[in-house]
Amino acid sequence: MSPADSLTDSLTDSLTDEVLASFATTPDARLRTVLERVVVHLHELVREVEPTVAEWEAAIGFLTAVGATCDDTRQEFILLSDVLGVSSLVETVNGSGEGTESTVLGPFHMTASPPRELGDSIDDLGGGRRALVTGRVVDPAGDPVPGAAIDVWQCTEDGFYDVQQPERQPAGNGRGLFRADERGRFRFRTVVPGHYPIPTDGPVGALLGVTRRHPYRPAHVHLLVSAPGFATLTTHLFVRGSPYLDEDAVFAVKEGLVVDFAEVDAAVGGDGAQGSSTTEDGMDRPYRHADVEIVLVPAVVP
Amino acid sequence: MSPADSLTDSLTDSLTDEVLASFATTPDARLRTVLERVVVHLHELVREVEPTVAEWEAAIGFLTAVGATCDDTRQEFILLSDVLGVSSLVETVNGSGEGTESTVLGPFHMTASPPRELGDSIDDLGGGRRALVTGRVVDPAGDPVPGAAIDVWQCTEDGFYDVQQPERQPAGNGRGLFRADERGRFRFRTVVPGHYPIPTDGPVGALLGVTRRHPYRPAHVHLLVSAPGFATLTTHLFVRGSPYLDEDAVFAVKEGLVVDFAEVDAAVGGDGAQGSSTTEDGMDRPYRHADVEIVLVPAVVP
Repeated sequence: MSPADSLTDSLTDSLTDEVLASFATTPDARLRTVLERVVVHLHELVREVEPTVAEWEAAIGFLTAVGATCDDTRQEFILLSDVLGVSSLVETVNGSGEGTESTVLGPFHMTASPPRELGDSIDDLGGGRRALVTGRVVDPAGDPVPGAAIDVWQCTEDGFYDVQQPERQPAGNGRGLFRADERGRFRFRTVVPGHYPIPTDGPVGALLGVTRRHPYRPAHVHLLVSAPGFATLTTHLFVRGSPYLDEDAVFAVKEGLVVDFAEVDAAVGGDGAQGSSTTEDGMDRPYRHADVEIVLVPAVVP
Repeated sequence: MSPADSLTDSLTDSLTDEVLASFATTPDARLRTVLERVVVHLHELVREVEPTVAEWEAAIGFLTAVGATCDDTRQEFILLSDVLGVSSLVETVNGSGEGTESTVLGPFHMTASPPRELGDSIDDLGGGRRALVTGRVVDPAGDPVPGAAIDVWQCTEDGFYDVQQPERQPAGNGRGLFRADERGRFRFRTVVPGHYPIPTDGPVGALLGVTRRHPYRPAHVHLLVSAPGFATLTTHLFVRGSPYLDEDAVFAVKEGLVVDFAEVDAAVGGDGAQGSSTTEDGMDRPYRHADVEIVLVPAVVP
């Protein structure tokens, strides 16, 4: 290290101390802690990469462009958080380590899902690759959670949510709010969702472009499961075999959330029925069947 | 550490690795390095402070508000960088350790300074606390840098730049572009600038509010000094004795940049003249006199 480097290090250390001291009288202790850690990491980052003034200006310009892309229906900062793995990490550090794993909420839970009856279809378009999702909501001991609310939303086979195609899809297509029965069971009919790209027409898309990253997410169904006395669970069911399961653009895949959407054909029914093209489930064969167990953990009382 | 914590740590570590791997094929090696360090620090920050989902949403909301405050004449992200000490740190790590210290450019170098002759006044309003600034631009050996360009800008005694008061101040008030003479010397007349608050009507002002930080900057004159073959110097002259020298809201003060604006009265002239209320400088007495030596360092040839 040259004397000049040593002098610069001493100056930057005292600058960091000065900034930290400026937050010392913040009344909210939690806010103070968070700001102090933000400052420490920002300053360490600057010391490590030693950005030129032009690079700093480019960073300011990028954040400004992200801000300019946000509006009532577009949240580019969340998308940035998503593609840097921060959203997934925040979900993970908030996990209890018990129960079904959580993952990111994503940007498409923007409208209320229509209440539907158990067994109803959430596919209002009559898609081709029919699926049946069945499951049970239980507590960590395996006992049922009767009456749990299961809010589901997913894209079409082509990879579009209803809000992205208001002229093609009726509002609420691909969405449903279900209530588990007295044994914690739920079931709904749908189509197997497609994989799809996150929005690429903004600065986050440009970032993916210059870093040669693809924008795709593997096929998934969103679930938001809640019941009195339990922590609300935000999660996905990922479709086993989907492209991009190993390289989700937003890093939300967890192995335990990947489920089989097993084919049930006319000859060998998943429910034992044979020789008929329509079963008592109301499912035209062939169809895909996914069965899941959702484990909720008791809410932490503050 | 509980087994659940240990499991979470393992999950978050592998998530960070996954995000880092996603940038591995970025063609621009410098961009890849910067993004990797950004990811490492963001993820470490999340692991350290373990933000709740509500806190993460608050952070997203803050950045979104900062973005919404930016327009053609307002740069709230630069202001955020300033109050977190990042702008000053970037200037510091780009310093050579030699020559006059640099400091932040600030947001008010938005219009070109009018060319003026050596000795001219940059104060078009006839302010009361008159000042004379004299100086010499030299290289590290002390030899003059003839013809160096000295771009200066400052606020009024009341603390406002011309662009902030277009109806009260003529454009170019407080600004001047000077050319050093063959001995590297320069001089201009002005008023002693006031201390002033940074803009507090946006989200950065709100941040200062909740952290009980004041928004003030100590009195200063901006200098941007350039000459062929030398690194351009962005710096300030701080007025010794100004309030807030020890607690600049943007952390830009460096001790070597604080200069005396010494009073020159009718009885004892700084230039040796006595008994007259007007000197050959064209300065009405009393006035303040600051004299500085600006040391430029040779440009680094890439």
